Amino acid sequence: MERVRVELGERGYDILIGAGLRRRVGDTLREVLTPSRGAIITDETVARLYAHEVAHSLQEAGVEAATVAIPPGEEAKNLAQAAKLYAALVAAGLDRQSVVVALGGGVVGDLAGFVAATYMRGIPYVQVPTTLLAAVDSSVGGKVAVDLPEGKNLVGAFYQPRLVLIDPEVLASLPPRELRAGLAEVVKHGVILDADFFAYLEAHVDDLLVREAGVMATVIRRCCELKARVVSADERDEGLRTILNYGHTFAHALETVTGYQRFRHGEAVALGMVAASLLAEEMGKVGPEVTRRQVALLRRLGLEVRLPAEFRKEELLASFFRDKKTLGGRLRFVLPVRLGEVEVVTEPGEDLIGRALERARRV
Amino acid sequence: MERVRVELGERGYDILIGAGLRRRVGDTLREVLTPSRGAIITDETVARLYAHEVAHSLQEAGVEAATVAIPPGEEAKNLAQAAKLYAALVAAGLDRQSVVVALGGGVVGDLAGFVAATYMRGIPYVQVPTTLLAAVDSSVGGKVAVDLPEGKNLVGAFYQPRLVLIDPEVLASLPPRELRAGLAEVVKHGVILDADFFAYLEAHVDDLLVREAGVMATVIRRCCELKARVVSADERDEGLRTILNYGHTFAHALETVTGYQRFRHGEAVALGMVAASLLAEEMGKVGPEVTRRQVALLRRLGLEVRLPAEFRKEELLASFFRDKKTLGGRLRFVLPVRLGEVEVVTEPGEDLIGRALERARRV
Repeated sequence: MERVRVELGERGYDILIGAGLRRRVGDTLREVLTPSRGAIITDETVARLYAHEVAHSLQEAGVEAATVAIPPGEEAKNLAQAAKLYAALVAAGLDRQSVVVALGGGVVGDLAGFVAATYMRGIPYVQVPTTLLAAVDSSVGGKVAVDLPEGKNLVGAFYQPRLVLIDPEVLASLPPRELRAGLAEVVKHGVILDADFFAYLEAHVDDLLVREAGVMATVIRRCCELKARVVSADERDEGLRTILNYGHTFAHALETVTGYQRFRHGEAVALGMVAASLLAEEMGKVGPEVTRRQVALLRRLGLEVRLPAEFRKEELLASFFRDKKTLGGRLRFVLPVRLGEVEVVTEPGEDLIGRALERARRV
Repeated sequence: MERVRVELGERGYDILIGAGLRRRVGDTLREVLTPSRGAIITDETVARLYAHEVAHSLQEAGVEAATVAIPPGEEAKNLAQAAKLYAALVAAGLDRQSVVVALGGGVVGDLAGFVAATYMRGIPYVQVPTTLLAAVDSSVGGKVAVDLPEGKNLVGAFYQPRLVLIDPEVLASLPPRELRAGLAEVVKHGVILDADFFAYLEAHVDDLLVREAGVMATVIRRCCELKARVVSADERDEGLRTILNYGHTFAHALETVTGYQRFRHGEAVALGMVAASLLAEEMGKVGPEVTRRQVALLRRLGLEVRLPAEFRKEELLASFFRDKKTLGGRLRFVLPVRLGEVEVVTEPGEDLIGRALERARRV
């Protein structure tokens, strides 16, 4: 079993990575918690696959736990589902000493984490991610949220889990498309923080695509180490943590104009990273080699890298500026300056963004 | 202007008390914040009295602020109202650098604080309490919440305000019943922490009832000092903070069996303090003088102290045990051992509680 520490003082916690860990959730959480009751919050898809194993392990460890399953998909990440979950926690008799186990992908982790953050003003929770995306990104760092009709993640909290338990075996059941979407976020970690890791990914594409156990464990551990370091330095997203949004400004526009229907989040991030890298080129921050290597790696991993012709430049620009206006913010891009290092650029200018988008259609 | 500090490290903040402060909200919050946008969250009653003054002061200070009014009363403290407020904050263009001003009593403070705690994972907020209860109790300490159909305050957070601005002049508009309800919580502070303050209250009953400015300011300042000390020692309600629940176990039962319709919260607390003091007598923890002085003071302040005959002992006991079962907790009472000092007693036994209730009918 591997262990990565997220250093956050009294809110610090461990990420444990080990094959079969889903069957030892009960015992393992006793390292840090002694609940008598709990709730496994999951979705209907994951419930069928793994909820019984997790429930059994909790029961064996003396934790009386209810299982509550939400419908699968981002549509469930809203206040109405949160209200249903609160009622389920009351019905199951959970109090401030109880535990919530978030068993699922990013949607489950965000929603269950938000419910745990706010039920009785906050009760402990444990993340048990079942997608690669959740394992390498959303389950670590305590960003929990639900969506509003007005936008994604507009209601939430910074609320750290007490443990993150990652069982790479569960990735075997992941649909190929979900695997690829997760790999986009894996590549992101390399670009923003670790050129050696990026090279490791280039050297292990075939292993990644067949989910070779040792390589998957290595990749998950390294992403968790990198993310843990960023989160430790900037828990509340006031500075360094912004770099984790590499590719996300473009991705958000693509997701918005398609109503979050066409792309998986990671797929939009892959396209967004390429566009951001091209923007960095246009600004003279980086040479073409950095973009070329990202394009090549993402493509070998089966990800779409060329901006489809149907997305009009004007439409995407309008989406940027609508966001900006609605939320009173400034348009920020995370741009590579070399592999393993990025910087944050504010308001780079519409012409430069437009040129990057033009080039993104031709990669 | 008086200043009381709530010491909580990086989450510490000042409570300012000063006549006319409602007209200086904008300037004053610039001590700690530099927002360009904000929202005044209030209720329809308070909006008519004070929202324009607060809005004007924000405008003068360069803060573009929307005013959003909820219906008055505890019924508004729910997730549906929170959802409406989130939408209003998006519509007003609030971002993470904006400010929420909670202008009102306990319901507004709890709800607006919860919305601020969760909008965009938490934005700054300032409490401007307009009731005595809120000024001396609920606006200080960062306990924010909404109610569920299953119970009060079941969803919330510990999320500290950046400032608490108390203008004693606004108490002039408070209905007499609200004033008395607030005075019950004032008396509570004396019983649990400060016998000298209790004696001061005994010596100033007439001033309190006519809301003499100097006495009101003294009382508010002392309660804030006492509460600040408790909150500093136990922000997350894991120990000492429990003493603030003196009278509240009985009060909660009275509120529950009357569907929160009959009593203002402070009225139930007054009855609850008397019952708790009698329970302490029954347990041999305190002599009759402590109860007698509370009964006399509360009565002179116009508060009901005798448990009305219609409340059957069995009904109240059933309410205690229902709570206990639903929420997996233990029945806890805060009991005086002398004026200015209390202790927490767990599961004192049904017979003793019953005897205290019997005696509470005859005070």
